[in-house]
Amino acid sequence: MKKVLFATTALVASTSFAMADVDLSGSAEMGIVGGDGFEDQFHTDIDVTFSMSGTTDTGLTFGASIDLDESDADRTIAGVPINNQNGTTEDIEVGGSPAFDNTTQGGETIFVSGAFGTLTMGDTDGAFDWALAEAIIGSAINDDHEHAGYNGNAGLDGTFDGQIARYDYSFGDFAFAASAEMNDENDNDDDDVFGLGAKYSGEFGTMNLGFGLGYQTRDEADIVGVSVTAGMDNGIKAILNYSDLDGVNGNDHHTGLAVGYSAGAITVAANYGIFERVDGSENEGFGLIGNYDLGGGAQLQAGYGNSDRDGVDTDRYSLGVAMSF
Amino acid sequence: MKKVLFATTALVASTSFAMADVDLSGSAEMGIVGGDGFEDQFHTDIDVTFSMSGTTDTGLTFGASIDLDESDADRTIAGVPINNQNGTTEDIEVGGSPAFDNTTQGGETIFVSGAFGTLTMGDTDGAFDWALAEAIIGSAINDDHEHAGYNGNAGLDGTFDGQIARYDYSFGDFAFAASAEMNDENDNDDDDVFGLGAKYSGEFGTMNLGFGLGYQTRDEADIVGVSVTAGMDNGIKAILNYSDLDGVNGNDHHTGLAVGYSAGAITVAANYGIFERVDGSENEGFGLIGNYDLGGGAQLQAGYGNSDRDGVDTDRYSLGVAMSF
Amino acid sequence: MKKVLFATTALVASTSFAMADVDLSGSAEMGIVGGDGFEDQFHTDIDVTFSMSGTTDTGLTFGASIDLDESDADRTIAGVPINNQNGTTEDIEVGGSPAFDNTTQGGETIFVSGAFGTLTMGDTDGAFDWALAEAIIGSAINDDHEHAGYNGNAGLDGTFDGQIARYDYSFGDFAFAASAEMNDENDNDDDDVFGLGAKYSGEFGTMNLGFGLGYQTRDEADIVGVSVTAGMDNGIKAILNYSDLDGVNGNDHHTGLAVGYSAGAITVAANYGIFERVDGSENEGFGLIGNYDLGGGAQLQAGYGNSDRDGVDTDRYSLGVAMSF
Repeated sequence: MKKVLFATTALVASTSFAMADVDLSGSAEMGIVGGDGFEDQFHTDIDVTFSMSGTTDTGLTFGASIDLDESDADRTIAGVPINNQNGTTEDIEVGGSPAFDNTTQGGETIFVSGAFGTLTMGDTDGAFDWALAEAIIGSAINDDHEHAGYNGNAGLDGTFDGQIARYDYSFGDFAFAASAEMNDENDNDDDDVFGLGAKYSGEFGTMNLGFGLGYQTRDEADIVGVSVTAGMDNGIKAILNYSDLDGVNGNDHHTGLAVGYSAGAITVAANYGIFERVDGSENEGFGLIGNYDLGGGAQLQAGYGNSDRDGVDTDRYSLGVAMSF
Repeated sequence: MKKVLFATTALVASTSFAMADVDLSGSAEMGIVGGDGFEDQFHTDIDVTFSMSGTTDTGLTFGASIDLDESDADRTIAGVPINNQNGTTEDIEVGGSPAFDNTTQGGETIFVSGAFGTLTMGDTDGAFDWALAEAIIGSAINDDHEHAGYNGNAGLDGTFDGQIARYDYSFGDFAFAASAEMNDENDNDDDDVFGLGAKYSGEFGTMNLGFGLGYQTRDEADIVGVSVTAGMDNGIKAILNYSDLDGVNGNDHHTGLAVGYSAGAITVAANYGIFERVDGSENEGFGLIGNYDLGGGAQLQAGYGNSDRDGVDTDRYSLGVAMSF
Repeated sequence: MKKVLFATTALVASTSFAMADVDLSGSAEMGIVGGDGFEDQFHTDIDVTFSMSGTTDTGLTFGASIDLDESDADRTIAGVPINNQNGTTEDIEVGGSPAFDNTTQGGETIFVSGAFGTLTMGDTDGAFDWALAEAIIGSAINDDHEHAGYNGNAGLDGTFDGQIARYDYSFGDFAFAASAEMNDENDNDDDDVFGLGAKYSGEFGTMNLGFGLGYQTRDEADIVGVSVTAGMDNGIKAILNYSDLDGVNGNDHHTGLAVGYSAGAITVAANYGIFERVDGSENEGFGLIGNYDLGGGAQLQAGYGNSDRDGVDTDRYSLGVAMSF
């Protein structure tokens, strides 16, 4: 028996109605994906997100979020010698994400917010990632426009278990954040990871400008990044992102640039990025997307990405419909 | 704090209210199951399904569906030599279904529908299964009435990763479908699977007749099946299903027959099926059910199944309550 | 596109509106935890629960419940020799709880209720656990107040697969229960587990008194327990719990005591418990909590627990916010 969720007008009007609630949203994608070394095939992806929120007697808001995709995510167990393969081993994928364990994160975020600002814990961005605008515009069902030269600005997030606490505060056009990821490993004396970030956005005539500045530090590395976003009333948008990565993951510094144009239901965009590495090599790439908004939460998305890993070229593409509910 | 889902009249009336939404439905079963080589024991099963839908500006409908049972399903990793067992290995069950991976299916379906017909992708029936009515009537909490001679008409679905695209179109009493499952394995040159199906249903005096015709093809096999369904106003229903399986899984052809009777809250039914195999052997069986509808979504269900695998006889039974929410 | 769940006044008013429905509730915790041999670290925990209910035509109520935490729980596979470690093995955690398998339980409960009483199946308490009040008051985000001497009164529950059927019936201030857990292991001739429980609660002047009596039996063990709860109008509450464990898990008998005081939004409580073991050793401990209710479903929680396992002392603490939605 199909059931639309139960909610009476009487309940909503009642003074004893709990302020806290749970909302559902979802997304889905269908289409075709392919590329170098990757057979053309169907793409079907889906997610459901639970968003919970409430208000204390003194007016603080609090809430939490988790989605099925991350709470059901796979983990890889490396080197399992299955089927008596004479010493050879395989990596196996097992489920059971740590979303519901307490001292790890697996996709959940939890927050408390008030006049003092907002404190967020769990699978949230450190202050570096929070501050910077990534050099990418538009969407593709298979994220093909994220290539070997694309930087998601994760910074030092995930150095330990990825369980992050971030405090942020905004006033007017300015916002600030500080974050920490604690070293929770029993046999590891490394320092915790700390981060700071600042953002500004403002209108200048027909242009909307945004600036981001982020910093993160741990034992052997201090990273710093800056981003500039410019959006014009005529539908053109540009994002520039530069970060000094201090050798983290072998990267010396990164530069990214994205340019896009929107008119009515259509968005087209391109992005380029390059990691200059400590060993002198380069990982670079570019991405292209075309999006057409069908209305009601559906969007046609075409994406292409080209990656050049120190001279070795590969590409990927996708075409399909993305839906949000 | 228990929370009935939040929905205000104001929101529903608002013109800015998004058309896309997420609905919840569920099912549960409790009872007792047992049979040959299967200790009598409690049966408790549960599921929750998320159904998402929306409408584009031009009136296309789109949507997606996923349930917790399939998104949390187990997979078996064979041959793991656990606990230093001196070379012996075990099969272990691990979770993490591919529901949320993009190039596999794990229970999700996604569709777009309009005047042109409906395109469905994911864990959906190929055109062969879509067209044919299975020779089974009524329900049992443990599906005991599905025996060694029962055919679910899966046909060639699942030859590769089970990720299927099906287009179907209906007008009046007729409906047609075409489907494909792509070979997405890098080291496999086999052809993709294609299928075609047609359905007709109509009223003839006091009788409701339905016909289904399905065809599927891949490299080494072409299968074809036909089904006839007859329902009479006096509550008697019969289904006949025949398919030529061309040696797929060792089966030459299959015949199934189901007869049922409904009066008020009661349904009783029997079904019989037989696989005649390439090697001359036979897998056959019969199933019996009695269902009593308690109203409000609850139903008493008794089921029995007898399987004869080339002369070896086993049976199973169950008794309990099935609930739908 | 964010979506508040869809529910129209028209649907609710309709006479054809199904009585059966699915409700969502959730909980989350954020804070800091630590203790002996346990690095100070962030704590972020989350859960979402699905509650389904309906009514038959004759007025029986039925329903079911499952939550994401338990349906996504980890299982441990012991002794896997990963990464060619020269014969050494590791325990790996894999997901895929048995919540959605039918002859096991993995957090789901299913019930039917009427004038005859209530029958509950699945991951529910046996009659022993159902009858007894545990000697604990208040909450801590990491349950630190549950120590080596704490007894959750599980009794013989979980002797086999933990899939329990319990019948309970109440009239006036009295309630009774009987429960069974079937031996569903093919190569095991042990008897099933049976249990009986009785509860009484009543008002005596300014005091609220509760009594519980529980009994459970299987092949080699009969356990019996009793609990007394006293709550006074001045906010003081006390719980005493004693059980004779007949050697189950090496325990001879257990005694627990909890005392708490609530005034307005504040609750403070302490509990003490001791297992006297068959071998003459003792496992004991005490726990302390302070809770402050912020309203709207949020609560500040501080917890401390001290465990003494046969003379070896450890402690744990936590501080944070618990939220219910």
